[in-house]
Amino acid sequence: MREDDFVAAIRAIVEDVPLPRRVVLGIGDDAAVWQPSRSHLAVIASDALVDGVHFRWDAMSAANVGRRALAANLSDIAAMGARPMLATVSLGVPESADLDRILEGYRGMQSLARETRTRIVGGDVVRMPALTFAITVVGEVRPSNLKRRDGGRAGDVIAVTGALGASRAGLEVLLRSPVVKECERQAALAAYERPEPRLREGRWFGASANVHAMMDLSDGLSSDLARLARASGCGARIETIPAHGAARAVAIAAGDDPERYALDGGEDYELLVAIAPRAFGHLSRRFERHFGRPLLRIGALTSEPDLQLASEGGESPLVPAGWESLA
Amino acid sequence: MREDDFVAAIRAIVEDVPLPRRVVLGIGDDAAVWQPSRSHLAVIASDALVDGVHFRWDAMSAANVGRRALAANLSDIAAMGARPMLATVSLGVPESADLDRILEGYRGMQSLARETRTRIVGGDVVRMPALTFAITVVGEVRPSNLKRRDGGRAGDVIAVTGALGASRAGLEVLLRSPVVKECERQAALAAYERPEPRLREGRWFGASANVHAMMDLSDGLSSDLARLARASGCGARIETIPAHGAARAVAIAAGDDPERYALDGGEDYELLVAIAPRAFGHLSRRFERHFGRPLLRIGALTSEPDLQLASEGGESPLVPAGWESLA
Repeated sequence: MREDDFVAAIRAIVEDVPLPRRVVLGIGDDAAVWQPSRSHLAVIASDALVDGVHFRWDAMSAANVGRRALAANLSDIAAMGARPMLATVSLGVPESADLDRILEGYRGMQSLARETRTRIVGGDVVRMPALTFAITVVGEVRPSNLKRRDGGRAGDVIAVTGALGASRAGLEVLLRSPVVKECERQAALAAYERPEPRLREGRWFGASANVHAMMDLSDGLSSDLARLARASGCGARIETIPAHGAARAVAIAAGDDPERYALDGGEDYELLVAIAPRAFGHLSRRFERHFGRPLLRIGALTSEPDLQLASEGGESPLVPAGWESLA
Repeated sequence: MREDDFVAAIRAIVEDVPLPRRVVLGIGDDAAVWQPSRSHLAVIASDALVDGVHFRWDAMSAANVGRRALAANLSDIAAMGARPMLATVSLGVPESADLDRILEGYRGMQSLARETRTRIVGGDVVRMPALTFAITVVGEVRPSNLKRRDGGRAGDVIAVTGALGASRAGLEVLLRSPVVKECERQAALAAYERPEPRLREGRWFGASANVHAMMDLSDGLSSDLARLARASGCGARIETIPAHGAARAVAIAAGDDPERYALDGGEDYELLVAIAPRAFGHLSRRFERHFGRPLLRIGALTSEPDLQLASEGGESPLVPAGWESLA
């Protein structure tokens, strides 16, 4: 069973009763949404990160492991257009673990919590066979600013907030040390070890009615874009693959295809947005002025289902090949 | 390092900035609390349950495993006087896992969600070496009805909502099949496999100003009462150990001390309350009329620190010996 099918089966089980009046959005987006008061929506996202699966405790600084675990969760909050408010952390501790080093991981997590004004309010400490951070973040958003992944329309411009594949390249650097220039090695490592959740960008997009759909890129563009397109009742065509320079350099040194790093690598934590085509030019100029880097146009939503990759010779189907939790 | 010391170290790290204005309660109670609107408080509790540590996937029905994982979390919501609203579930799936059986576990979880009107709104599916349910529940409570564990006063009557130790006995039955009467075997197994979160009782206590402090019994009376007493700036004296009949039978058959099951066994998920002494008689009669079973008086909060166990020969110190996550 693939992850999406498994999640669909879970969804069928829990949706045997309709959503309560004040729950706006259940399983199937980056976060769930409910309405605690008239003026605000609350969003909630949970993401677990496991040693050996989502990070490398032995190969990374403890502070970066903790920071990255929170970053992955904050990225889901960013993808709703929300601001984070508080977080709980269930920590799984193996018997052999160095507790002082885990506290160092907590300090790294807290550094990002402080920067993003997220309060860690509780959680749990349990024995687990592998070091695990199971984090839940609650955020807030004005009802008019909430962005879901199912609001895209055929013809919408698809764009991303940054070049992709560098995180995948960073993992390659960490595991196999391919020979690349020092600056590219550092850029790839930084992308893997210290991803920045795009919270400011997410709220900025939240304020624009021309942004029809938004999600974060955690599993890889090919899988995540397929999800956004399907949720919106569309397909998508990728015209430009925004591969990061460090992803190109590392992939070539490792004998891999740079475009696969960008399409399938995952963990870039950039935002993927569907924007009204008439508004894209203006919005992307404002984005660049505001954030000092470009909003990268990569293609469009289409009325035909599935993903297509445009190339000189025409279009070819693109099979989602990003991260599979249950692979 | 013991769990309480480790959590204290975590708390020192995350409390380097003061609580935001709308966060009422951070680490250190059954749940954290914030105020999304004037009329309501929201509470949030996270608890992870791991195969081999908190349940036995191979020896239990899958439905009961799922149900129990949610019950443990709902118990924390009950302990705040709140009603549950929604939950997220981060599921850790080992490579060898039978996904259909895990869906059966989800059905069990959903059965309790339906009974308690808790909506499962999302979560995550990840690879983990052991089957894990990391659950976060959000609940609501009127500000006047919130119960914390730090409100107890010296002289308060300490009471519990049910007899203790049966869950510990159920684990014994599951693992080692001691020879006991069938009805006691069944009662012990039910206590371990299908604990009932005391949500109705928690809200009922929440409505009484004479209930000064409340928490749920997850780690064992000796550890949890020590926490409530310490948080309240008190000690406590236990006069009666409310051992469950099935706990007595199983402990004796297994060659164990029944009182240790009741004091240290854990996972009973009964509520522990500190009640104004003048109000106890009236409140306990109303409790029994309302719920059809007695509120069990077990002792009192004291002005001297630490726990004492009263017996015919006087008092002896009681060392907390409940569940230790990091043991």
